[in-house]
Amino acid sequence: MSTRRDFLKKTALGAAVTMLGTGQIKAMPLEVPAIHKNGRTGKMRLTFFPYELKLQHVFTVATYSRTTTPDVQVEIEYDGIVGYGEASMPPYLAKELGTVESVCEFLGRVQKVIGEFKDPTQLEDILLYIDKMDEGNAAGKTAVDIALHDLVGKMFGLPWYKIWGLDPKKAPNTTFTIGIDTADMIRQKTKECADKFNILKVKLGRDNDKEIIETVRTVTNLPIAIDANQGWKDKRQALDMILWLKEKGIVMIEQPMPKTQIDDIAWVTEQSPLPVFADESIQRLKDIVSLKGVFSGINIKLMKCTGMREGFKMLNTARALGMKVMVGCMTETSCATSAAAQFSPAVDFADLDGNLLIANDRFDGMKVVKGKITLPDRPGIGVVKL
Amino acid sequence: MSTRRDFLKKTALGAAVTMLGTGQIKAMPLEVPAIHKNGRTGKMRLTFFPYELKLQHVFTVATYSRTTTPDVQVEIEYDGIVGYGEASMPPYLAKELGTVESVCEFLGRVQKVIGEFKDPTQLEDILLYIDKMDEGNAAGKTAVDIALHDLVGKMFGLPWYKIWGLDPKKAPNTTFTIGIDTADMIRQKTKECADKFNILKVKLGRDNDKEIIETVRTVTNLPIAIDANQGWKDKRQALDMILWLKEKGIVMIEQPMPKTQIDDIAWVTEQSPLPVFADESIQRLKDIVSLKGVFSGINIKLMKCTGMREGFKMLNTARALGMKVMVGCMTETSCATSAAAQFSPAVDFADLDGNLLIANDRFDGMKVVKGKITLPDRPGIGVVKL
Repeated sequence: MSTRRDFLKKTALGAAVTMLGTGQIKAMPLEVPAIHKNGRTGKMRLTFFPYELKLQHVFTVATYSRTTTPDVQVEIEYDGIVGYGEASMPPYLAKELGTVESVCEFLGRVQKVIGEFKDPTQLEDILLYIDKMDEGNAAGKTAVDIALHDLVGKMFGLPWYKIWGLDPKKAPNTTFTIGIDTADMIRQKTKECADKFNILKVKLGRDNDKEIIETVRTVTNLPIAIDANQGWKDKRQALDMILWLKEKGIVMIEQPMPKTQIDDIAWVTEQSPLPVFADESIQRLKDIVSLKGVFSGINIKLMKCTGMREGFKMLNTARALGMKVMVGCMTETSCATSAAAQFSPAVDFADLDGNLLIANDRFDGMKVVKGKITLPDRPGIGVVKL
Repeated sequence: MSTRRDFLKKTALGAAVTMLGTGQIKAMPLEVPAIHKNGRTGKMRLTFFPYELKLQHVFTVATYSRTTTPDVQVEIEYDGIVGYGEASMPPYLAKELGTVESVCEFLGRVQKVIGEFKDPTQLEDILLYIDKMDEGNAAGKTAVDIALHDLVGKMFGLPWYKIWGLDPKKAPNTTFTIGIDTADMIRQKTKECADKFNILKVKLGRDNDKEIIETVRTVTNLPIAIDANQGWKDKRQALDMILWLKEKGIVMIEQPMPKTQIDDIAWVTEQSPLPVFADESIQRLKDIVSLKGVFSGINIKLMKCTGMREGFKMLNTARALGMKVMVGCMTETSCATSAAAQFSPAVDFADLDGNLLIANDRFDGMKVVKGKITLPDRPGIGVVKL
């Protein structure tokens, strides 16, 4: 038990080094705050800075390509303990997640009020208040939520998987995404990752779907998850494709059709021999109930749902409705993927490869070992700054 | 932080005294287990014994009266830390909750397997396994769940309201029940409790409902919650009664009609100016989704829903469905009411007077102070043996 006190000392030291090590952090106090013995006399202080993520490969979805992802890094300090959070904002999701500009404006407002909350452990009230501060900027809310969870977990001396009562050994394999590309590139990428992962994810929804799958199958027989990204427009064609994919060793389908075509999706799900997951059709907790009977399951992404607390509630609500659950991510650092990984022992599928896609990760945290998500035995979200 | 180590020492000592102090505990090992420094090398050991609750007053519901409640007390010990749990089994609920005999038989089976679980903190897997061991005996499952939560909270050095991120100051007023009785007795009981509580609960559903309310109103103008216990059989009469009750300062209605009359209840709820809560219509998490649109909210009772973990999931699922939540109880010791009180800061109504109705409580825990639930600042479920 004495390691807990040592841990707090080390964390405080870590915070001091952090402050000296970067000029980017705004509004960070010059003095290292004293460690109060009762751990409850300090004030929460929030800092943030934009941090552009460099992608290792060009990222292509159905409609466009890019080489970077806009991102904002957040820190919340309390009594010498620092919690880390992150907002990742792929531009095509700006309406829900926000932009670097809107998220920084939002975080500036949070910065002004967060010190009013005297007890960081009262996450229910704090996060409800922050949620009500803005209609959008979900990624900004998520960054605050993750930083608070990291802080509180460190105050408790416990990783969140343990606070949530989960067995870290049950963390699942993660899928690794083979992006839309030429046949040669798909073959090459598949070769590169076929030995490292136990399940792949392939993005379909254009006119060469079968060709892509056949190409992947020339390299590997690994199970494959499909993300159709709303690409199929006709319900009978969608079902025919799913039946064909089933024969090719595909194990699940994400968002087969546009989110506006609810009845068609419900029809496809009912006929489908593979589970069908909602992605574009769902953002937050309140959306789940209307998806019962439409999809087999939901994809929980922290950046969309405002963070770990709501994400864990979504997991349990989906289970109560008899639905399956997967956890997904954006391109993001190991900060946000490690946060999402905390409840991965309770999901059916995990798609937490976002940190593997960037060249400038700032954290050591969740790892993929022989294809399986491996949770660090560290408090909070389990990350250490690189 | 050093208080945590001291706390563990004291808890271990407390366990030793507990063992010496009662001859009722079965299968308790003679030796005090060593406190292992890493806290993870021990084995969980479960003990239990029947404990008949003596009621302070004769308890009358629509169909019968009684002076005792059958109950079984449970302890789970791990590395010198003891977690307390309880199964309370009012006879009229034997089908769902079990009897002393069936619960003891069930706990005997749990006793044999619980040592196989190496990490008590992995509540999700342990409780799922225990749930699958039996179709019924919900109260026996609840006893194990509460004891495990108490144990894990003590291992963490944290009360469950804090693990759940809730503000203990937001714990609500509890209702206090005025049972079915003669007008004189109702007047007397109401006088006794009108100064101690801020909201009363009155049981209706027989042919003298208005008379009872008029009688209570001769004594106090406190807000009143109504439990009709399925007593009203006609939807128009039920609605007329609710409209009349609204004028008399009633604030909510529990289970107005028989659980079989789903469509009638939905009609009443839609017309009702007061929120309508499910009690007999709901037992567990899986039941909630079918009650959306039928009731305004649900009553969560630990003894029916298998415990704190499922109860907290029910709370969050009900919120996700836009429903209200109340927490209720059986006649039970402060062990089970203190467990239920842990999530009371997040409910709309609390009916946690069960420990106040018995004459032989074994615990000090949750208190009612000026009518309001007050949570002890102690780890786990916050109880200390008397």
